[in-house]
Parts: sequence; C-alpha cells; structure tokens
Amino acid sequence: MAAPPLPSTRIALGISYAGHGYSGWQSQLSGQTIQDKLEQALSRFAAQPVSTVCAGRTDAGVHGLMQVVHFDTPLRRESFSWVRGTNTFLPPDIAVQWAQEVPRAFHSRASAVARRYAYVLLESPVRPSVEAGRVGWVFRPLDAAAMREAATHLLGQHDFSSFRAAECQARTPVKTLARIDISRRGPYWRFEFEADAFLHHMIRNIMGCLLAVGQGLQPPAWMAQVRDARSRRVAAPTFSPDGLYFLGPVYDPAWGLPSQAAAYHWLP
Amino acid sequence: MAAPPLPSTRIALGISYAGHGYSGWQSQLSGQTIQDKLEQALSRFAAQPVSTVCAGRTDAGVHGLMQVVHFDTPLRRESFSWVRGTNTFLPPDIAVQWAQEVPRAFHSRASAVARRYAYVLLESPVRPSVEAGRVGWVFRPLDAAAMREAATHLLGQHDFSSFRAAECQARTPVKTLARIDISRRGPYWRFEFEADAFLHHMIRNIMGCLLAVGQGLQPPAWMAQVRDARSRRVAAPTFSPDGLYFLGPVYDPAWGLPSQAAAYHWLP
Repeated sequence: MAAPPLPSTRIALGISYAGHGYSGWQSQLSGQTIQDKLEQALSRFAAQPVSTVCAGRTDAGVHGLMQVVHFDTPLRRESFSWVRGTNTFLPPDIAVQWAQEVPRAFHSRASAVARRYAYVLLESPVRPSVEAGRVGWVFRPLDAAAMREAATHLLGQHDFSSFRAAECQARTPVKTLARIDISRRGPYWRFEFEADAFLHHMIRNIMGCLLAVGQGLQPPAWMAQVRDARSRRVAAPTFSPDGLYFLGPVYDPAWGLPSQAAAYHWLP
Repeated sequence: MAAPPLPSTRIALGISYAGHGYSGWQSQLSGQTIQDKLEQALSRFAAQPVSTVCAGRTDAGVHGLMQVVHFDTPLRRESFSWVRGTNTFLPPDIAVQWAQEVPRAFHSRASAVARRYAYVLLESPVRPSVEAGRVGWVFRPLDAAAMREAATHLLGQHDFSSFRAAECQARTPVKTLARIDISRRGPYWRFEFEADAFLHHMIRNIMGCLLAVGQGLQPPAWMAQVRDARSRRVAAPTFSPDGLYFLGPVYDPAWGLPSQAAAYHWLP
C-alpha cells in the first residue's frame, strides 16, 4: 500500500520586479515572463515543480512593487528561507519580498478585494534618460485641476468598455474605481488608482485620456462622454507601459499579510 | 588664399545618464562609454567630429544626473536644437538636458568650484529588484546618529589618501569636503556629498567606512583614525557603484548655467 500523500501547505509570496525586459507576468512558451522566472526559481529551490497563481497579471513592460502569488507545497520550510532561497535563483530585477503560510481558504486572486496601481510620469521638454523604461513622458505642461476634474467622472461603479482592450478576458466591463490621486514632485507626476479590479489596458487607456485633458486637447467633461460611449474608439490612444507600477492587491487585514510594498518609497 | 576659419563658439551641455551598461564616462577603444556615445551623437548631429571636456569623470556603473561638458564648434545652431538633435542619436538611457552658449573663458572642469554626489542605499533584508543597479544595498539596520558623527570627522580640508584608489591621477590627495547630509525615506537612505573635488573612488570608499560605522562594526571615532592613517589599507572595502549619482558641478552663478538637475527629484 502506498503511503498517503503528505498534506500540503499554502504559501503566499510578495514579489517585486522591473517589467521592461520581460513579456509581462503570464507564462509563455518563450519563458521570458516574470511568472516563468519565478516558477523556475521556486522549482529549483523546492527541487520539484511549483505552479503559482497571481493577484493581477501585468502587461509587458509594467513593473510590480508587490505582486502576490500563492502555491501549494508538501515541503516544510521556514518562511524566510523561501525568500532567500528563491531569490538566489531569480534574475537581479525580480525578488521575493516576503513569504507567509496562509490558510487553504486564501486565494491570491479571489481573496483580493481591490488592486492598486501607480503611474509615474515625467513632464519635461526632454525625454527620460536615467529613468528610461521606468516613467511615462509628456513634453507639454499638464493642468492638474483639469485632470482632477476629469478623473471625478470615472469614480464609482461604471461600465468601463471605453477603456478596455479588445483582447480583455474579464467577464464584465463593470468595475468600481474607488480612487484616482494625482500629485507631483518636481517634474514627476504620480497618478494612483484603486479599484475592485481593472480591465486589460484600463489604466493605460485612462492615462491617455487624462493626459489629453491635462494638455488642454479636451475639456474635463469629455471624460464623461468617453465613459458613456462604452466604445474604445472614442478614447485616446493607449499610453506607454513604462511608468505603470502594480502596487499590489488589497486583502482583508484578517489574513495578516503585508499591506504595502517597501519599494513604494522608490517612486517620486 | 584659403578663407579664414570660421570663429568657433563654445557650447556647454548638461547630460544625464544611467551608468549601468556603460564602462564609465571616459572614452575607451571599446566605444562603450558615455563620452563615446555622446561624442558619436554630437558628431552625427553636427556632421563633423566633436570632442568634449567634462566636469567630472564617473566610474563604470555610476549614474549622472547633471554631468556638464563643453566643446567648441564653428556651427551656429539654436540652443534647444543641440538638445533635440543630439538626443535623436543617443541611446534611451543617455540624454542632453540643456545646451547653452558660454564665453571662451568657461571650462567645464576648471570652472567648477565644487562637485555634488548622492549615494542612494536600500536597507532591507531582501536585495534590490525593481531598483536593481540603481541603489546600493545593506541588509543590516543602520544607525543614523553614529554615521552622522563619523561623517563630521571628514568635513573640512584633509588629506584623503585613505579613501583614494591606487589608480587615482589627482595631483594632490588634499580636498575640502563641505557637506555630508544623511537622510532617509522608507527603507531608502540618501547620502549627499559636496567637495571642491573628489579623488578616484573617494565616495565609494567613504561609503564603505560610513556603513561599517552604521552597522556597528566600528565606532564613529574610527573614521578619524582611518582619515589620519593616510593609507588605503586601514579603510573598509570600496562600496558598490550601483547607488552613486553625480548630481553635477557647481559653477559661479555669473555663468548663468542651470544649477540643479530635473531628475534630482527622481531619487528617494
């Protein structure tokens, strides 16, 4: 009679990464995605295949300050040894920040009640250099008041079809946008977004529209028209992924997981 | 009879760059230096060879927020067209920030009365990832008060031989360190240095010693002993170039040049 399988435990990990140089989060045949690099490293450390589920798949070029994944494993390891051991096998621009055992009921995607993103933008007559690949860029001065007014038209529950990529696989285009905060430090703008969930390209499409308003190409009220049209054709072009950072999912504090990425302070 | 040569004008440029990926500032046969890339781009834009002189040569891996160079050219171009035109031919991680015609008496190196550098450091049990190549790293907590006390032993005019690389070509090891400011934001520390000039590896060697004190491996007074020994052998190892940023030279305001890099706000 074979021995019964060992009971497995569920582990959650917080992951940070620079997204340029990778083809996004989700595993591909190319092997050049963050998920591929993470699962290869986890599998080497665990000496057995490890599959992960993430809180939010990021596009090619998008960065992650606190992606969260979970996986099940029969191995018993001290939490920090998952961090240290996996990081040994990861490239320099990807790292596990923390590891924590979680109850079986926890699911990195399904348990997330909200997601947070930040978009960092350089406003300058000259393109980025030292921060190339890490910021979006506009050369025309932006009007903060106009962008803030435009943003109010997106807050609350709406059908966001106008900001949805054709390839989007979400079941519904109806999402609830809780917050868009716009601040600046020197020539750098930071746009922070929080919603229950985001459609594919939603933030990059909203950024394109906010910047059309900020540059005076459209009035703030145009944002309401775009929203109500429920058609991708009326919105501005999808903006660059360079300045987009997944800040991480929001979970019920009862799960006891870290709520903010250490690298949050890295952003201007 | 040949026509007399056109009178040339002197142009100063402010340059910013991410240093990883390059073999430092100074031109090499490899062609993989910032100076090589800049002179290739300038020469393509000018359609004739252009040679530059810089304010401060940076090591391999060191970043520049406002390097300043000058060159002489018979061409007459509007200032911003030097910026835009040259940037067209530069890689994405190097950019000219400004161009300004200057009197013949201006010399990017000789006219500089001081230089400023910043060292950005991540204090975390986990290595950098999203900021890989752009920050130094310590995993042990640092004592700010101890580092500030140690730093006072370096302020003023001293023989800095203990912090000087063997290859250093400076005429004298005597320099005047005007300022070391130590601040932090979240897990990121910023160390700012200002001196009339710096020896080769001087800041990276000082950083090694400050961190030995900050981690409790040496008392603050040890810094005075290292300084007085005038020998590289007593100091801590040269610290990583990853978090080192040349903030730029300081000139007499009478020259009318920009005094601070826009990207200064990029640093935590």
